[in-house]
Amino acid sequence: MTSQSYPITPRNRVKRAPERGSYDHATVHAILDAAMLAHVSYVLEGQPFCTPTLIWREGEVLYWHGSSASRMIRHLATGVQACVVVSHVDGLVLARSGFNHSANYRSAICFGVTELVNDPEEKMAQLIAATDRFYPGRSRALRAITPQEVKATGVIRMPITEASAKIRAKGVGDDEEDGNHPVWAGVIPVTTVLGAPQPSSALLPGLVMGADMAPYAPGRRLDEVLTETQAVYERG
Amino acid sequence: MTSQSYPITPRNRVKRAPERGSYDHATVHAILDAAMLAHVSYVLEGQPFCTPTLIWREGEVLYWHGSSASRMIRHLATGVQACVVVSHVDGLVLARSGFNHSANYRSAICFGVTELVNDPEEKMAQLIAATDRFYPGRSRALRAITPQEVKATGVIRMPITEASAKIRAKGVGDDEEDGNHPVWAGVIPVTTVLGAPQPSSALLPGLVMGADMAPYAPGRRLDEVLTETQAVYERG
Repeated sequence: MTSQSYPITPRNRVKRAPERGSYDHATVHAILDAAMLAHVSYVLEGQPFCTPTLIWREGEVLYWHGSSASRMIRHLATGVQACVVVSHVDGLVLARSGFNHSANYRSAICFGVTELVNDPEEKMAQLIAATDRFYPGRSRALRAITPQEVKATGVIRMPITEASAKIRAKGVGDDEEDGNHPVWAGVIPVTTVLGAPQPSSALLPGLVMGADMAPYAPGRRLDEVLTETQAVYERG
Repeated sequence: MTSQSYPITPRNRVKRAPERGSYDHATVHAILDAAMLAHVSYVLEGQPFCTPTLIWREGEVLYWHGSSASRMIRHLATGVQACVVVSHVDGLVLARSGFNHSANYRSAICFGVTELVNDPEEKMAQLIAATDRFYPGRSRALRAITPQEVKATGVIRMPITEASAKIRAKGVGDDEEDGNHPVWAGVIPVTTVLGAPQPSSALLPGLVMGADMAPYAPGRRLDEVLTETQAVYERG
């Protein structure tokens, strides 16, 4: 792996179970790109706030959007420290002791300073990305974005200045002397999957899904679909 | 519904799409109880931090635990404001305009002040709850908790002082005039489900899963299983 690494600082260093930690861009990006939902944390008048939000990534920049009038967007527009977290639960780990119960997971924690996207070209490009990163090419088929919609939406960008990934992906970690304790132990996999599409009741007769929706086949894992659509989006 | 309500304050009031907001205990609890993963946000030296964490609820108190030596536990033990968020993604909502794309979701945001559980009886009860709330009765079958494990674990309690729920659970919300735009629109359901159990390779011959694991049948939705095990745990 020749991937670059994020700097390791007191803020992002993985102190507990450091063998699960990673700082290279590729590992962090893979966790981010497999998600659409992130938790964005910030401080307002000394109080912590956390907002679940759709995010997307271009290179080393995370983007998200919201109503221009919302508390989150108005505050982040002033340029503040934020902490953006993406988490995937991959399995429940059942051990012979309570202490060794665990979960398999992938999480990425990113730190940076937020700013409002003011440049009209970047803003329009990112409003389009908010659709096309998830449904490649879809924006061309949609009703065009109106000036009022642009005005009503605030787009936030946060260059990632520090980040770390933490991954547990293995079997049960029992103490050796617990091996003979007579209780079932093992891993129960957890996946997030897509169901059968429910077409809008007002759909024009004969309309079918376009190529933008091809990856979203029923039964597929959402994290795999999102990884795939990010790659398609990046190829352009 | 005769459920009590949380106070509505500038901090927890749902300002955007207020018709999706709710403050009653029953609605907030249902969202919390359907999850095991929460995102815990706090402020340390002016910087926001967010830690993905296993949580559980007893009445109006949220509990979580971690290594006594971890930054999060040591800081929260000093009694600080925290913001605990639980989010479920239930569907992708594809509209005829980018602006009206959305998601179906259930989220709960809880505010409170954290404290370390110091009382030995409450601490032991909550270490047991950390297993039994998810796998009812399992603690009795496990190797007993040791004094060293109790010492190595910090349990945090946070009485919920303010909270709100936000739910979107409906079809596409297109502008009326977009109804004839020729692009597929609809909802793609998203669920988080359990896979087939992977027994530990070191399992004693003939050992099968106990009643504690009965709810965790392959294919079931994790949120439904967790709602069910919380109810079983509360019945005692």
